Amino acid sequence: MSSGGESTFDWIDVRSEARAKAGLTRRVRPRTSDSTDLDLASNDYLGLAKDKRVAGAAAAATLKWGAGSTGSRLVTGSTELHAELEYELANFCGSQSALVFSSGYLANLGAVTALSGPGTAIVADQHIHASLIDGTRMSKADVVVADHCDVGKVRHALETRGKRRAIVVTDSVFSVDGDIAPLNELHEACRANGAALVVDDAHGLGVVGPGGRGAVAEAGIIKAPDVITTLTLSKSLGAQGGAVLGPSRVIKHLIDTARTFIFDTGLAPSSAAAALAAIKILREEPDRPERALTVAHDLSNRLKEAGFAVSTPTAAVVSVRAPSPEQAFQWAENCRAQGVIVGCFRPPSVPDQISRLRLTARADLTEADIERAVRVIRECAASSGVESRPR
Amino acid sequence: MSSGGESTFDWIDVRSEARAKAGLTRRVRPRTSDSTDLDLASNDYLGLAKDKRVAGAAAAATLKWGAGSTGSRLVTGSTELHAELEYELANFCGSQSALVFSSGYLANLGAVTALSGPGTAIVADQHIHASLIDGTRMSKADVVVADHCDVGKVRHALETRGKRRAIVVTDSVFSVDGDIAPLNELHEACRANGAALVVDDAHGLGVVGPGGRGAVAEAGIIKAPDVITTLTLSKSLGAQGGAVLGPSRVIKHLIDTARTFIFDTGLAPSSAAAALAAIKILREEPDRPERALTVAHDLSNRLKEAGFAVSTPTAAVVSVRAPSPEQAFQWAENCRAQGVIVGCFRPPSVPDQISRLRLTARADLTEADIERAVRVIRECAASSGVESRPR
Ligand SMILES: Cc1ncc(COP(=O)(O)O)c(C=O)c1O
Ligand SMILES: Cc1ncc(COP(=O)(O)O)c(C=O)c1O
Repeated sequence: MSSGGESTFDWIDVRSEARAKAGLTRRVRPRTSDSTDLDLASNDYLGLAKDKRVAGAAAAATLKWGAGSTGSRLVTGSTELHAELEYELANFCGSQSALVFSSGYLANLGAVTALSGPGTAIVADQHIHASLIDGTRMSKADVVVADHCDVGKVRHALETRGKRRAIVVTDSVFSVDGDIAPLNELHEACRANGAALVVDDAHGLGVVGPGGRGAVAEAGIIKAPDVITTLTLSKSLGAQGGAVLGPSRVIKHLIDTARTFIFDTGLAPSSAAAALAAIKILREEPDRPERALTVAHDLSNRLKEAGFAVSTPTAAVVSVRAPSPEQAFQWAENCRAQGVIVGCFRPPSVPDQISRLRLTARADLTEADIERAVRVIRECAASSGVESRPR
Repeated sequence: MSSGGESTFDWIDVRSEARAKAGLTRRVRPRTSDSTDLDLASNDYLGLAKDKRVAGAAAAATLKWGAGSTGSRLVTGSTELHAELEYELANFCGSQSALVFSSGYLANLGAVTALSGPGTAIVADQHIHASLIDGTRMSKADVVVADHCDVGKVRHALETRGKRRAIVVTDSVFSVDGDIAPLNELHEACRANGAALVVDDAHGLGVVGPGGRGAVAEAGIIKAPDVITTLTLSKSLGAQGGAVLGPSRVIKHLIDTARTFIFDTGLAPSSAAAALAAIKILREEPDRPERALTVAHDLSNRLKEAGFAVSTPTAAVVSVRAPSPEQAFQWAENCRAQGVIVGCFRPPSVPDQISRLRLTARADLTEADIERAVRVIRECAASSGVESRPR
C-alpha cells in the first residue's frame, strides 16, 4: 500500500491491459451536430428526436417549466406535463395506468424490485436487457434464468419454484438481435401458475403493434390484470425517460415502494414534453411505424442477398453476424470511415457470445440511404476479411 | 389462483391497506406552471432551473441536437455537448476526469458496482442515499454498514476486512438532515488501509466549497488518486443527469465496465446544455452558493428562536424535527395549504426513524420569502399539535 494512495487503483490497470489485449477497450466518440454520416446505429427508430415538432415542444417546455424538475416526483418533481404524459402513455398503449421514471433503466429496476423481493421467484429469459438483470440482482428474490425464448423452461421453473409469488421477466423485442419473445405463450404459462408477466417493450413501442402501440398491445395482453409493461421514451419517441404501464393498483404500489421512483429526481420537463409530442405524431401518422419495419426488411433482404448471415427483423433491429470479435470491430470501423455508422456488439455485451453488426432501421431513411448503407457494408466486409456468399 | 389472473396482484392490496392504516400512502401531486406557492422543498438550491440563461441554453440545445441523445453514450449518444460538459465538470471541481450519466442515481450505481465486486469489501455509512445502497446491493461485494459518521467504525471495518480491495462509500452532505461527513478523517482511514473513498457530493456541489465547487473540493481531496466523487446535475445545477469525477484511469474503467453507462441511453442534449450553462453562472457569480448558505442559516436560526428542534445547516438543507410521523405529515400538509411547500420525511425514508420537515434554502429566496416561511411554519406547528419552546 502506497502512502500517497497512488497504488489504490492499480488493479484497474491490470484489467485495462487485459481488455486492451483482447481488443475490448471501449471509446466514447462525440458526434458533431453537422455530421453527414448515415446513422444506422441509434434507436431513434421513427426519426423523431430531431423532428421540429418534438424538439420544438421540448424547447417550449424548458422555457415554461425550467430545465430540471427540481426534486423527486413525490416532492416537487411532478408537473402537469408528467401527469399528462402518464395519461397519454396509458391511453395510447391501452393500459389502465402509467408511471414515468427518469430513464428506462430506472423504470426496469423499479418495476422488477417493487414486484419481487425475498418471497418471490423470478424467472428471467437468458437474453434480457442489462437493466432487468440488475433489477433481479437487487431484488433478493430466487432467480432462475431460462433458456432464450424457451417457454417450456419457463413453465418448468414456475411449476417447481419454492416461493409463493413469481414473476416472469422478458424483453419483447430483444435489443441485440431484434428477435421477439413468445409473449402469449409466456402469458399462458404465467396465468397457469399464478405468476405475473413483466415485459420490457423498449424496442417494441413505436415500431410494432397497431399504430406502433408496441408488442404487448400487439399480443393483446396490455390490459391483462397480471401483465406489467415497461417502456423507454429514449428510443422511438426520441426523448429521454422511461415508464411502467399496468393495472392502477400496481402503479400505486410503485409510487409507494419503487426506490428508483421515490429517491430519484423527476424527468426533466423538456423530455416529458418531447415524448408527449412524439405520441401525438404517432397518432397523426399511424403509418410511420410500418415504414420503419419496411426499411428493416429492405436492409435485411438486401444484405441476405449479398450473402451475409442476417436476422429476419420483427422490429427495427437487424443483426448481421461476423466471424469474430476482431472482424466485427474492423467491419464497423471501416463502415464508419465510409460515413456509415453501425453498431458493433461483441462479447461480453452479447448474451450468446456471437459478434455482430447491429443495424437499426429508421422510418426516415430514404431509398438512397438504404442503397448507400448496403453498398458500404458490402465493401467494408471485403476490406475487413468478412466473407459473403451472394445468392 | 384465479383463472383470469385477477388475483395475481392481490398481495399488493394487503400491503397497500397496511400502508394506508399506518398513514404512509404516498401521493403524486403535479405542480402547475403558474403556482405562487413558496418552494422550500426542491433541490434547486441556486434557483437556476428556471434561470433564463440555463433554460435558454437547454432550449437552444434541443433545437440544435434533437430532444434525445438517441443511443448509448458508446454508440450514438455522445455529442460534443457531453464532452464539453465532462471537461467543464472536471475543470470546475478540480478533478482529473469526469463521466456524465443520465441521472445521479445511475452514476452512483455505476461507480459503486464498477469499483467493487466479489473481491471487494464495501464499508458504507448508515445514512447513505438509496442509490448508493442499491449499488452495494448489486455489487456482490462484502458490505459492512458503519454507524453514521463514525470514522472509528469505518477504520475497524477496513482493518478487519476479509477482502484485499476495499471502498468506503458516503454522502458528503447527507440528503435528509443536511449534516456533513468527516471527509478528511474518512480519507485518512482509507489511505491507511489501501482503500478508495467514494463520495456522493450531490448536495455539496453548488453550495459548499470554494465558489460552490463542492464538499470534496472543500476538503482538499478532489485530486487525490484514491478518491472518487459522484455528482448530480439535477440539484444545484437545475438540470437532470449525474456524473462521476476521478482519476482518468478510473473514468476509463467506468467507460469499459459500468453497466449503467454502457447499457443506458445518453443524457438528453438539453440537460447537458443546462448543466453547462449553470456551471458558467457559478463561475460568473461565485457568491451565489454563499447566498444559499446564508438563507439556510437564517431559516435555521429563526426556527430555533421560535423553539423548534432544528439542524444547524452545513449546506442548504435544514431539518426540523417533528414529534411523530402523523404530526410531521399534518404539519407539512398545513404549510402546503398556506402556500408554503416543505418536504416531509418519515419512516421508512429516514435512516434514524425520526420524522421531520425538510426545508431547502435557495439562493433566490428573498427576505420576505424567509419571513413568510417562518411565519407559516410556526402557525402550522400550532394547528398540527406540534409544540415549540420559544427562547
Ligand atoms: C431493452 C431495453 N430496456 C431498457 C433500456 C434502458 O432504457 P434507457 O436507455 O431509456 O434508460 C434499453 C436501452 O437503453 C433497452 O435496450
Ligand atoms: C445524495 C443523493 N445522491 C443521488 C441522488 C440521485 O440523483 P438524481 O436524482 O440526479 O438521480 C439524490 C437525489 O435524488 C441524492 O439526494
